[in-house]
Amino acid sequence: MEMNEKIAMIKAATGEVKADLVLKNASYVNVYTEELLQGDIAIAQGRVVGIGDYDGEAVLDMTGKIVCPGFIDAHIHLESSLVAPAEFVKAVVPHGTTTVIADPHEIANVMGTDGIEYMLQATEGLPVDVKLMMPSCVPATPLDESGAVLTVADIEPFYDRPNVMGLAEMMNAYGVTHTDKDVLAKLVAAQAHNRPIDGHAPGLTGKALNAYVAAGIYSDHECSELDEAMEKIRLGQYIQIREGTAARNLEALAPLIQRGYENRTMFCTDDKHPNDLLEKGHIDYIIKEAIHKYGVDPIIAVKTAGHTAARYFKMTDRGAIAPGYLADMVIIDNFDDFNIEKVLKCGKVVYDAGCVSPVKVPEIAAALEHKALHTFHMAPISKDDLMSEEALGCIGVLPGSIVTKDMGMREAIDLKEDVLKIAVIERHKNTGHIGLGYLQGYGLKQGAVATSISHDSHNIIVVGCSEEDMVFAVNRLLENQGGIVVVNQGQVTGEIMLEIAGLMSNRSLEEINECLEQAKEVAYSQGVNEGVDPFMSLSFMSLPVIPEIKLTTKGIVKVQ
Amino acid sequence: MEMNEKIAMIKAATGEVKADLVLKNASYVNVYTEELLQGDIAIAQGRVVGIGDYDGEAVLDMTGKIVCPGFIDAHIHLESSLVAPAEFVKAVVPHGTTTVIADPHEIANVMGTDGIEYMLQATEGLPVDVKLMMPSCVPATPLDESGAVLTVADIEPFYDRPNVMGLAEMMNAYGVTHTDKDVLAKLVAAQAHNRPIDGHAPGLTGKALNAYVAAGIYSDHECSELDEAMEKIRLGQYIQIREGTAARNLEALAPLIQRGYENRTMFCTDDKHPNDLLEKGHIDYIIKEAIHKYGVDPIIAVKTAGHTAARYFKMTDRGAIAPGYLADMVIIDNFDDFNIEKVLKCGKVVYDAGCVSPVKVPEIAAALEHKALHTFHMAPISKDDLMSEEALGCIGVLPGSIVTKDMGMREAIDLKEDVLKIAVIERHKNTGHIGLGYLQGYGLKQGAVATSISHDSHNIIVVGCSEEDMVFAVNRLLENQGGIVVVNQGQVTGEIMLEIAGLMSNRSLEEINECLEQAKEVAYSQGVNEGVDPFMSLSFMSLPVIPEIKLTTKGIVKVQ
Repeated sequence: MEMNEKIAMIKAATGEVKADLVLKNASYVNVYTEELLQGDIAIAQGRVVGIGDYDGEAVLDMTGKIVCPGFIDAHIHLESSLVAPAEFVKAVVPHGTTTVIADPHEIANVMGTDGIEYMLQATEGLPVDVKLMMPSCVPATPLDESGAVLTVADIEPFYDRPNVMGLAEMMNAYGVTHTDKDVLAKLVAAQAHNRPIDGHAPGLTGKALNAYVAAGIYSDHECSELDEAMEKIRLGQYIQIREGTAARNLEALAPLIQRGYENRTMFCTDDKHPNDLLEKGHIDYIIKEAIHKYGVDPIIAVKTAGHTAARYFKMTDRGAIAPGYLADMVIIDNFDDFNIEKVLKCGKVVYDAGCVSPVKVPEIAAALEHKALHTFHMAPISKDDLMSEEALGCIGVLPGSIVTKDMGMREAIDLKEDVLKIAVIERHKNTGHIGLGYLQGYGLKQGAVATSISHDSHNIIVVGCSEEDMVFAVNRLLENQGGIVVVNQGQVTGEIMLEIAGLMSNRSLEEINECLEQAKEVAYSQGVNEGVDPFMSLSFMSLPVIPEIKLTTKGIVKVQ
Repeated sequence: MEMNEKIAMIKAATGEVKADLVLKNASYVNVYTEELLQGDIAIAQGRVVGIGDYDGEAVLDMTGKIVCPGFIDAHIHLESSLVAPAEFVKAVVPHGTTTVIADPHEIANVMGTDGIEYMLQATEGLPVDVKLMMPSCVPATPLDESGAVLTVADIEPFYDRPNVMGLAEMMNAYGVTHTDKDVLAKLVAAQAHNRPIDGHAPGLTGKALNAYVAAGIYSDHECSELDEAMEKIRLGQYIQIREGTAARNLEALAPLIQRGYENRTMFCTDDKHPNDLLEKGHIDYIIKEAIHKYGVDPIIAVKTAGHTAARYFKMTDRGAIAPGYLADMVIIDNFDDFNIEKVLKCGKVVYDAGCVSPVKVPEIAAALEHKALHTFHMAPISKDDLMSEEALGCIGVLPGSIVTKDMGMREAIDLKEDVLKIAVIERHKNTGHIGLGYLQGYGLKQGAVATSISHDSHNIIVVGCSEEDMVFAVNRLLENQGGIVVVNQGQVTGEIMLEIAGLMSNRSLEEINECLEQAKEVAYSQGVNEGVDPFMSLSFMSLPVIPEIKLTTKGIVKVQ
């Protein structure tokens, strides 16, 4: 903070000059004493400067309203929203989100440090603060061909950037507990910079968990059972209670949202898909569920939604309504209805009565933007590329799961038996690598579906009833520089263009959602089985760390 | 942490290799869940690596014992113990102290940045971690002549030193709330380095308090009333509950040591004099008082004694017994008796069954040591220096208080009316400045008393029944290069040598205490009134910020 800002704040606090804005007669959540207190909240220089009896250049009457500190998502991959950060932000501002801690793991798998740089530039000056954690596991596994490898030397310089917080979810628990030096070097570096290191260790317990924590990893967002969370809390981890689109742990972990644990728990979403964001909301949805479905004390729910994350990430300027803190605030009608009426970011009203204030989309350096919009480094494919003279492994899709079943070997597409061809096409480095196999249980009866969202390397996955339509879908996706394409007999029947790294769009969340829902409907109409998400299920077919059979650019992989 | 340490920790945690030390069958205080839990605590590389079922190269049976995280004093001036840091540490190790946050305000007033450098070197490698806060107010007031002036430019480079935490108690609340730029520059700099800023604002309330907090000051150790503490907690300040030698706030603030506030409160002593340290102990004394006198839950008391301070000062490596944390632990028999049996610092037993392990006294750079041992830059005085032809103001001593009363003007010593002469002699810069006055209510009937402990500038204060004895006492103190001297008719009757900056001794706390008690007894036998501390009361006679009349090197000052 500059001297002149500090002077202006102090003068407004003492009453020597009027505050810039006063929230008059506010009831507000005091996270320190866990009380609902009354007072005028005075704001100057974008920060709260005093609570008491204040006059302001502008005044908002808060009679009958409740003011909460802005909400914080403690762990999210923004890419999961399929839109650029500015569009994501427009969508979550009405839900009271004022800070998100984002792990740009997906774009880093495509673009490496350029992807991180892109996210830093694309989040600059938005009305939601986007703080980045450095992706710790790019690529997720050496079995796959990603667009980049991030070493500790790549990561470390980013700790000098003001919006970079620490090291993101360390998924390689095996590497940690088995003292893999490349893995540990990333932990050592983060600690040398005094940065938090996020965990990701579903089901880890006992001595392995002790070792993982001792290595310096003090959070976890993968708990799906209360006992698991309690073991982790007792060993010193903070628990990021996740309630996102794919993974939902609030029901299991709601007992943690009470006095005694409220300083060790926070909320996160991990992944939020467009329709989920639009229909349910964001952190506000978790608060409401906690209060209404699980009987959580509203004050504790609100505190969990911001204060603890701020403390854990050492953001001493937010997570409370107190002098000196950023004036990030959410104004609701009451705890029962929890309707968000206004949202303030740094003392500016950014959402009011259904309207989001205009968001200035950050400018990206031209060369970087060009790179981000051209991430498909491959030639168009032809039918020959998808042919095999040998029998190939067949992956069985299990509805509602990313785990698969080994269905033995197949020699050809067989629509009667629901056997489709599937291919994973390397798209980062023009290697020409194409992995081939068969897929059963997906249900498609006509055409083909291709996507450039394929965890975690984001090569192209295509599945089809004929090699011809598969070729057409892939080459169309290549033309679009990313996204999802549904085709039928040489016609595009549905598509979503995700031109930023093949993962995100510059269009609005509403538009993308509309395209996505339309394409999904078409995919179902072309035969995709009910119970199978036509695109999300595909996007996990190439992640060779999930059992029991997957397809990479190098072919079928059996996973233990 | 180095890679090889991390590998060794992980291997011990997984059980691949034996731990260095295991505390077998321990009951331990889990600060996260506020439970007493059971398990073997495995230690490697000086840190806890796992809790569960472990084997170690060495094993300590903890059956029937309770293991607590090491205690932290959140704010102390080590100089108040009158001994060098190594000697202080030897005295507090048996009390379970493993970290102290020290403000070297006194030595900085004498030696400036050299004094801070001295304390950094003198605390290196001790079995209690001494972390420094940078003195924010040197000199305490421009009315006085101290040995140094610390500007923001002097302070800022110290933030690069590993044991420097932040900015110490900002006593100049008026300067903060009235936007004094020199004061604010120190706050701006500490914040730019992301460092905590300690407060010191007794009785500050309302808008002035809001302004003080908004300026970035998030702790206070000066609360003497519960309401005052509650107002400060609600505005976001951490409360350092002080129970020291001179100021004792535990009784008033004990209601804060309970669930709901335990993450916002910590313990500190501020000042601990030798006899108090020896008779009562340190942070353990506060815990015991809290439990036994005020009915505090022992687990909450133990948590308050370490965890919150660690969080506030962003020391993520201590304040809990958890994997990855420093193995700083206190082993007690039970909560009722709270007898400390063993103390571990970084996994080493540093206190066991009444014995402190040998402490290696840190080496001080020769030139710096020479400077610290020669801080009296003045010539011997003579009787003429203490004579005045005019009447002088007379200070009235109030028993048990540092506040004084204006007793009008006097022209000469008058033992029948208990009127003594008092002088303050500038000793830092050879200015020859000597302030003269009279003192009533002290009681001395024979001889003189001189001290180089005189807040905050630590010039020489001398009071006497005759100018001859005053001269003798001052010149003796000069020969000693500091301390306290009691004389009678040209004979030394009691003395304490404080050769380090005139404030501390390299001898043991027991020795210094013995000298001090003997000298005190002599002072009383020479007439000092019961109810007046012969040395401490003198040491505040020159602090011109306490009402209503004081004496500086420039003469009598009336204080509003």
